[in-house]
Amino acid sequence: MRNFDFYAPARILFGKGEENRIGELLKPHATKVLLHYGGGSIKKSGLYDVVTASLKASGLSFVELGGVKPNPRLSLVYEGIALCKRENVDLILAIGGGSTIDSSKAIAMGVYYDGDIWEVYEQGKVIKKALPVATILTIPAAGSESSGDTVITNEERQLKYGYGSPHLRPLLSIMNPELFFTLPKNQLANGVADMMSHVFERYFTNTTHTDLTDGLCEVTLRTLMKNALLANKDMKDYDAWAELGFSGTVAHNGLVGMGRQQDWACHGMEHELSAIYDVAHGAGLAVLTPGWMQYVYKDNINMFVQFAVNVMGVEGSYRDPDAIVQEGINRLREFFCKMGLPGTLSELGVGEDRLEEMAKKSTGAAFGEEKPIGGLKKLYWQDVLTIYKLVK
Amino acid sequence: MRNFDFYAPARILFGKGEENRIGELLKPHATKVLLHYGGGSIKKSGLYDVVTASLKASGLSFVELGGVKPNPRLSLVYEGIALCKRENVDLILAIGGGSTIDSSKAIAMGVYYDGDIWEVYEQGKVIKKALPVATILTIPAAGSESSGDTVITNEERQLKYGYGSPHLRPLLSIMNPELFFTLPKNQLANGVADMMSHVFERYFTNTTHTDLTDGLCEVTLRTLMKNALLANKDMKDYDAWAELGFSGTVAHNGLVGMGRQQDWACHGMEHELSAIYDVAHGAGLAVLTPGWMQYVYKDNINMFVQFAVNVMGVEGSYRDPDAIVQEGINRLREFFCKMGLPGTLSELGVGEDRLEEMAKKSTGAAFGEEKPIGGLKKLYWQDVLTIYKLVK
Repeated sequence: MRNFDFYAPARILFGKGEENRIGELLKPHATKVLLHYGGGSIKKSGLYDVVTASLKASGLSFVELGGVKPNPRLSLVYEGIALCKRENVDLILAIGGGSTIDSSKAIAMGVYYDGDIWEVYEQGKVIKKALPVATILTIPAAGSESSGDTVITNEERQLKYGYGSPHLRPLLSIMNPELFFTLPKNQLANGVADMMSHVFERYFTNTTHTDLTDGLCEVTLRTLMKNALLANKDMKDYDAWAELGFSGTVAHNGLVGMGRQQDWACHGMEHELSAIYDVAHGAGLAVLTPGWMQYVYKDNINMFVQFAVNVMGVEGSYRDPDAIVQEGINRLREFFCKMGLPGTLSELGVGEDRLEEMAKKSTGAAFGEEKPIGGLKKLYWQDVLTIYKLVK
Repeated sequence: MRNFDFYAPARILFGKGEENRIGELLKPHATKVLLHYGGGSIKKSGLYDVVTASLKASGLSFVELGGVKPNPRLSLVYEGIALCKRENVDLILAIGGGSTIDSSKAIAMGVYYDGDIWEVYEQGKVIKKALPVATILTIPAAGSESSGDTVITNEERQLKYGYGSPHLRPLLSIMNPELFFTLPKNQLANGVADMMSHVFERYFTNTTHTDLTDGLCEVTLRTLMKNALLANKDMKDYDAWAELGFSGTVAHNGLVGMGRQQDWACHGMEHELSAIYDVAHGAGLAVLTPGWMQYVYKDNINMFVQFAVNVMGVEGSYRDPDAIVQEGINRLREFFCKMGLPGTLSELGVGEDRLEEMAKKSTGAAFGEEKPIGGLKKLYWQDVLTIYKLVK
């Protein structure tokens, strides 16, 4: 086990009806709130009315900024920063999924950042302060409700970059599984693929002596797969959504990756797809992950045998390790397929013409300074290109 | 799954050498520190010198209070409160195990509490404020390095009570497994029994649809048992201690019990033993837990079959559930035995003369107002007495 620093202060208020408490919960921390949200589904569902009534009942004033899109855009972030400064907002309440929360975090640090907030993403500058962010989660997927991470798309430059800071950990997040009942099935599927990837990126490692976190990862993955199939059958299955939502938080609050070398190559490769083709992040990950496994598994076959046996339920005794791993990867592909997720880049609408460009961008080779991505196996742009082609 | 409120803000700095950073870590939060510790083993080990050098290098001044004993005493807490007030201490650094940390938490809230701090424990009064507490853990056991809990013994009145508040969550805790190398074997064993009990108290539940937390509990228990046997063989096995230390934090930071009805009867029954006979908490739990299982399992046999199969590795197919549970309980007894833990009250030096008195105290029947203890099965004093007699 490696040394680690675990800090996950986001308070999670979980269960039926918790959104009614938002005013009372924010009252000690805010006077003027920015409500940040997406395309207006929260107005149709009635959540908007619940939240605004609760804020008013607690004597909190608020301003609003809707319009967050999947792969949240830098242009809206700029708008949010200006609005918060103009209105003296002292807390941002994100109502939505990862895109809305990530956009809120960008605005939260932008209010205090002296310069163009995109620099922080592009150059990894260290921020010292951010407005507090609270969230009401409507899509379990990104884990942004507990993480200190944010991913923003610079739509003009077709770049999608992530950034992380302890200052961006949400103050508190409300997670009521009932709010997930009205999601379309593809958002369930994309979300599950994203949550599973957050575990995979931490699970596949060359670090040894990781009994506890190995097991935590495996339990989280099995819980996600079991309950994804249940929710897929009945989109109003409270218990299934409860397991998915809670698992999504555990998947990305840092815990299951503590003391381990982590990987993150699949996220890096996927961000290139999203930046150019605006594909759903989870769908992109569902395509890339089995291809990545196929390409890298021989570098640490024991880890992939463990995955096949402990996560995918492959019978592991007295068998050829390659065959076990292959069956594990196949079962993962089958699971994604059952969830209606795509299996190839072409199903995502990604052609072959820009694969090399994306591969070169993913490692920085396109910008003159290549840094291989991935922990378990270092991937250069030629490796990434091979993986893209494996799943084309 | 039930609604829940998860809040575990304690930062955990884990691994070799982390104690050298204590001054730098506390600097932003303190000017004058109370060093609180036990019998002086930290002076023999050199840890005291490392810590004081680090504090001095960061320009922090400090005062000291040693002398914490297992089952930490109220009298020392009073002394600590007076010292902190007199010296304007603004942060308490606990260097030790659960007793030292619990004593620190009592002092931390006592500084701001207007009245006798014992009232808080006895009457469950709500505190509004406490000094920040940081810890350097030297015994993995109590989980107090991440929890908001404290247990204090009123030695005059032979009472041992616990109390919990979010204000008592440590600011940060340093956990270097090397600091555990010099523990005597019985402290390893007691600590493991305590950590396992923290999981058991959360695991055994009548709440259904708890896939994720069931699994998290099971993984933590398996990790503890595996690595306890490894450390027992080689008390300088870094990796085994690393798993034990990390598991102890996960066992008690709240996560694995979220959304579940919890039990806590064994802790309640054990506190009576410690209060009168000053037995080691973990040793008391090792005696009581199998007896408790034996007495209650028929109330939720499925839960105990799951325990036997998923935690104790009992073959579970096509067999009589009672036999499966029995084998699970026997295997737990065998594990405790291998660790050198006692199996009966008489081995703890607890005779039969005060069993009824302790049973009546555990449920409050001794004080005129009985409240049954336990979540999975409600236990009245007669039940507790039966369990004491089962393991006498």
